[in-house]
Amino acid sequence: MKKALVLLSGGIDSSTTLAIAKNEGYECFALSFDYGQRHKIELLSAKKVAVALGVKEHLIISFDMKKIGGSALTSEIEVPKGEIQGIPVTYVPARNTIFLSFALAWAEVLMCPNIFIGANFVDYSGYPDCRPEYLKAFESMANLATKVAVEGKIKFKIEAPLLYLTKAEIIKKGIKLGLDYSLTWSCYDPQETMDFPKPCMKCPSCLLRQKGFNEAGLRDPLLK
Amino acid sequence: MKKALVLLSGGIDSSTTLAIAKNEGYECFALSFDYGQRHKIELLSAKKVAVALGVKEHLIISFDMKKIGGSALTSEIEVPKGEIQGIPVTYVPARNTIFLSFALAWAEVLMCPNIFIGANFVDYSGYPDCRPEYLKAFESMANLATKVAVEGKIKFKIEAPLLYLTKAEIIKKGIKLGLDYSLTWSCYDPQETMDFPKPCMKCPSCLLRQKGFNEAGLRDPLLK
Repeated sequence: MKKALVLLSGGIDSSTTLAIAKNEGYECFALSFDYGQRHKIELLSAKKVAVALGVKEHLIISFDMKKIGGSALTSEIEVPKGEIQGIPVTYVPARNTIFLSFALAWAEVLMCPNIFIGANFVDYSGYPDCRPEYLKAFESMANLATKVAVEGKIKFKIEAPLLYLTKAEIIKKGIKLGLDYSLTWSCYDPQETMDFPKPCMKCPSCLLRQKGFNEAGLRDPLLK
Repeated sequence: MKKALVLLSGGIDSSTTLAIAKNEGYECFALSFDYGQRHKIELLSAKKVAVALGVKEHLIISFDMKKIGGSALTSEIEVPKGEIQGIPVTYVPARNTIFLSFALAWAEVLMCPNIFIGANFVDYSGYPDCRPEYLKAFESMANLATKVAVEGKIKFKIEAPLLYLTKAEIIKKGIKLGLDYSLTWSCYDPQETMDFPKPCMKCPSCLLRQKGFNEAGLRDPLLK
């Protein structure tokens, strides 16, 4: 059975990517990161989604990006509210490069040529490490970096099936594949409540999620 | 003052690289990793070298590569003794890619264009991620991955000043720069003793170190 390693944050994009890989017949391995993110609650969603979609193994790697800082998600910089122009302060320096590097390491051990990432270039946050030219460059580097690639046993491929879809198209695709979006989490700045955390509904990630559901003509099941 | 971020394991190559960057007039930042390596003792050497060479800041990032495995340095696979043909089992999947990715993240926050790595292509261990074509590919990727590069504020450069030197040439260079090699550590498989750890003198890294000192006509100060 062909293998896929899927980066899984627990958000809409990575969860849909996992659903797509599963639907394409891959045996899926999910990789998540506890990196000091403000919205660590997303890991709970990642776990739920991984179980719901029956991944073969779900690995969570921990490290502290707060030591490096430079982002509203990993330091005291405030999460902005409303829509943003340019590359926002929620950008985490080299995050996808770090995530993909760990994915590459595990993929080499698993002998898994396909690395799936939910990067999106249409309704996206302006992050440079979500662009097609970046993903292509990572792929070239990966095939020079690793023993199994250099020995000709594997050619790594970075798969980004959502790259050219709008958020609404992503959501419609996931719904078609039976994905339950109430399991997913998007908010960068969760509000503490007595019983369970609630999305802030104001951060760029919340706004993008709402825009997606609105344009898809659907109701976000997380807001029930 | 121009800045350099130097990957520092505490071995001969990375310590010499730091001495070179310092000698070239850079304000140096050192980055080390506690990644579950068998020879974690190298971090003590990294600290000593960082202090001796007066780095501006020394950051140690922790994560557990044992979860990923696939190497004699991070799993139960035995460290080989003697010289090795081909890419050895001490190769750690995607290690330099992970290290350079964290370096890139910190370099972006520091606004530091120069990332120094002690990669060596002559008296080396056969690791694919020590080759010039790999380093070039990482550099290209880095300049597409990051906000400061995409905005034209920085062009990252991966500097590998030891790339084409033999181990003996590296050691002679370090000695000339006043580096005290008794602070450094190379052995992959340290032997526990009553008072302090001793190099095994049989693993490929010990053999390469001895070969270097022998060819340089010097005595390894660690063996006093």
